[in-house]
Amino acid sequence: MYFFKDFHIYTLRNGGKYDFFKGSLLIEDGKIRKIFRKDSDEPFIPEGAEIIDGGFRHMIVPGFIQTHIHMCQTSHRNMAENIPLLPWLRDHIWPFEAALTKKTIGLSVIAALKELVSSGTTSVLDMGTVNHQDVIFETMGIAGFRYTGGKAMMDAGTGVPDKLLEKTSDSIDRSVRLLEKFHNTGNGLLRYAFSPRFALSCSKKLLREVRKLSDRHDILIQTHGSEHKEEVEVIRSMSGLGNIAYLDSIGALNDKTVIAHTVHPDESEISLIKDVNASIVHCPSTNLKLGSGIAPVYKYLQKGIRVGIGADGAPCNNALNIFSEMKMASLLQKGINHDASIMSAKDAVGLATINGALILGLQNITGQICENFDADMVILDMDTPQTMNFECHPTAAIVYGCDPRNVRSTMVAGRFLFRDGNFSQEIKDLERFFIEMP
Amino acid sequence: MYFFKDFHIYTLRNGGKYDFFKGSLLIEDGKIRKIFRKDSDEPFIPEGAEIIDGGFRHMIVPGFIQTHIHMCQTSHRNMAENIPLLPWLRDHIWPFEAALTKKTIGLSVIAALKELVSSGTTSVLDMGTVNHQDVIFETMGIAGFRYTGGKAMMDAGTGVPDKLLEKTSDSIDRSVRLLEKFHNTGNGLLRYAFSPRFALSCSKKLLREVRKLSDRHDILIQTHGSEHKEEVEVIRSMSGLGNIAYLDSIGALNDKTVIAHTVHPDESEISLIKDVNASIVHCPSTNLKLGSGIAPVYKYLQKGIRVGIGADGAPCNNALNIFSEMKMASLLQKGINHDASIMSAKDAVGLATINGALILGLQNITGQICENFDADMVILDMDTPQTMNFECHPTAAIVYGCDPRNVRSTMVAGRFLFRDGNFSQEIKDLERFFIEMP
Repeated sequence: MYFFKDFHIYTLRNGGKYDFFKGSLLIEDGKIRKIFRKDSDEPFIPEGAEIIDGGFRHMIVPGFIQTHIHMCQTSHRNMAENIPLLPWLRDHIWPFEAALTKKTIGLSVIAALKELVSSGTTSVLDMGTVNHQDVIFETMGIAGFRYTGGKAMMDAGTGVPDKLLEKTSDSIDRSVRLLEKFHNTGNGLLRYAFSPRFALSCSKKLLREVRKLSDRHDILIQTHGSEHKEEVEVIRSMSGLGNIAYLDSIGALNDKTVIAHTVHPDESEISLIKDVNASIVHCPSTNLKLGSGIAPVYKYLQKGIRVGIGADGAPCNNALNIFSEMKMASLLQKGINHDASIMSAKDAVGLATINGALILGLQNITGQICENFDADMVILDMDTPQTMNFECHPTAAIVYGCDPRNVRSTMVAGRFLFRDGNFSQEIKDLERFFIEMP
Repeated sequence: MYFFKDFHIYTLRNGGKYDFFKGSLLIEDGKIRKIFRKDSDEPFIPEGAEIIDGGFRHMIVPGFIQTHIHMCQTSHRNMAENIPLLPWLRDHIWPFEAALTKKTIGLSVIAALKELVSSGTTSVLDMGTVNHQDVIFETMGIAGFRYTGGKAMMDAGTGVPDKLLEKTSDSIDRSVRLLEKFHNTGNGLLRYAFSPRFALSCSKKLLREVRKLSDRHDILIQTHGSEHKEEVEVIRSMSGLGNIAYLDSIGALNDKTVIAHTVHPDESEISLIKDVNASIVHCPSTNLKLGSGIAPVYKYLQKGIRVGIGADGAPCNNALNIFSEMKMASLLQKGINHDASIMSAKDAVGLATINGALILGLQNITGQICENFDADMVILDMDTPQTMNFECHPTAAIVYGCDPRNVRSTMVAGRFLFRDGNFSQEIKDLERFFIEMP
């Protein structure tokens, strides 16, 4: 039980307004039990609560949610530079993923986890690789991170290493087994998502089957789509359709589908995503770095499509820092539309909080500082040069001014994973465990 | 005298190659006296040298140079959001600047200085406001920062507050007086630059006169140009010319002219900049945030134009963090040109080191880790999750992975302005001085 005394508190609310006030929070049994507003509420500190005094120097914000990431790729950071998407995958990422062992995948996801929690991310939608997904779930479970993910499914395509190429039925069986073993375990923090990699490495049969399983089990599907012009052209040459239209034509899309990137859809495909009620995840740094382009995110939001945000993977970003992604997301749309008034900092916070929770189906559990929500939250030090005058425009200060230096502590479901600059004992122990693994 | 023992050392060299090695540095009388390469040189530690042991966990890089910034605007951070350039200037920035006093300008530049040195910037080309430029020079001199700057010159235009609007002759006289008083003082760290604000707030007479003074005194001219479409259209409607062509037509440009932004030139204006041998400063975040667009920086570099980089001002960025600007600069060109192979991380480091020094005319003094250069350098902690595998691609690790958390210490001309997370006593004293000023 924690009592966070005398903090600035900032959160978006449903509908997109923000709420910013001085107050205190009572955290109990992993939840935000009570919010005390300084101006109106008399705080009550229950016996046994540890008091954490913010002295109004610190701000509590909702834990940030990244809805597209590849934690298993983290140890390939700084190893594949200046290369466009398809050769980057075939010559670098897939051979790297094929060679991953239980030990090296463990080290990768621990490195990712350390970076994520130390820069304010409390929840992800993660695409694993084909193998060793069980290691990721077990690690996240011990760490207490809010993790939705699944094994990558790859049963077709050019340039796929033997160790990643699966029979269709094996890919499905393995996915369903992981779902049965891990979905909704770890006090509900662990959740499964079917993860057919992308149209070029999945058969039609696989994609159709996944859609059926998603409907039957009420489980997310995550995939990549319409990311790079070259990828879209390959799909067009084999199907006569754009990437999104192709996925829909074979019955692969439903309202639980989360499509990462979506940089190059045509107008009819954008309407299709809206009609199907699928979600899009914006990965601004990655889309620039791999030469893919800039997704028309402002247009998506105007059309009422759910859009989340993610840093993607360490080899294509090369950081997993939500602050730089939020800043990019806001600034890029202002710049390419030549309109300073659109895509405010608030819209960017929305991608990383409210929208992320909606995409994960966790909108009543996380994404806001709200009574009876889980205590997924970040403590930001706002008494820094880069956040001067934050009271005048707290959202701008968060999105444009903050960097990971501002993150003091990160809590998931009432448990500190990062506190005053130190990782939890569980994270330290997990790291040592994988270092010492033969 | 300092002996930096057992560091990774990274620097770009003239011609654009990078040099990355393990070694030690001897710093004496403000200069890098001797570089000892681990593989080939026997280190010699003179008596009296303070030994700083990096244990090969830390990397020394050249101090970063921002060639466009407005330090005096810093305390207007988070006060003017979602507004395009011209109303942003007229309704927010100019009234703010007009109201600055000795005290508030001091507080602004100290806030800027703290942010800059704590995130690795050792040198700037700064545009002040119309008044109180002496306070900035005096403050920078005491702090020991490498500062080139000048008072803004504004003798014309719409919407200029009375306190900023000068008579042409007064603007010139004041500038020349500041030049005479401060140029090349502070052990050579302080330098003057004529600073006609931009075409819309300067008379032709002023711009012509500044050009003559620049030629006569061998002094830089800094201005803004071709930043926003609306600004360019106003200039075209009054002169029939694009912004850069207009400046050239009245004889304002020479090879010591530094033009910030240059987002919307036509092809002939780009050739003109090359022919005149003027410099451009890229401000990627600001250009996006004010809805200006994305400058074609890759094209400028291909044409052999000198391009620097800057965070511009806190009200339009809202950070002064060189790492996010370098990342933006590299990624934006890859993205808009749909080519992952261009504008590498190395090109971005070039903007912020070698090119910055060239623009300032300090290419034999700073911008590289080089014997007999001044010791302008940054110590980066590379043993962090976000810089994993930095030895494989040190430039990618610096540009894409590092954030200000990685900056441990920052040194200008052999003097620590930021050491192990603490500001120098001079900076702390200056801050207290301005806080206590009536």
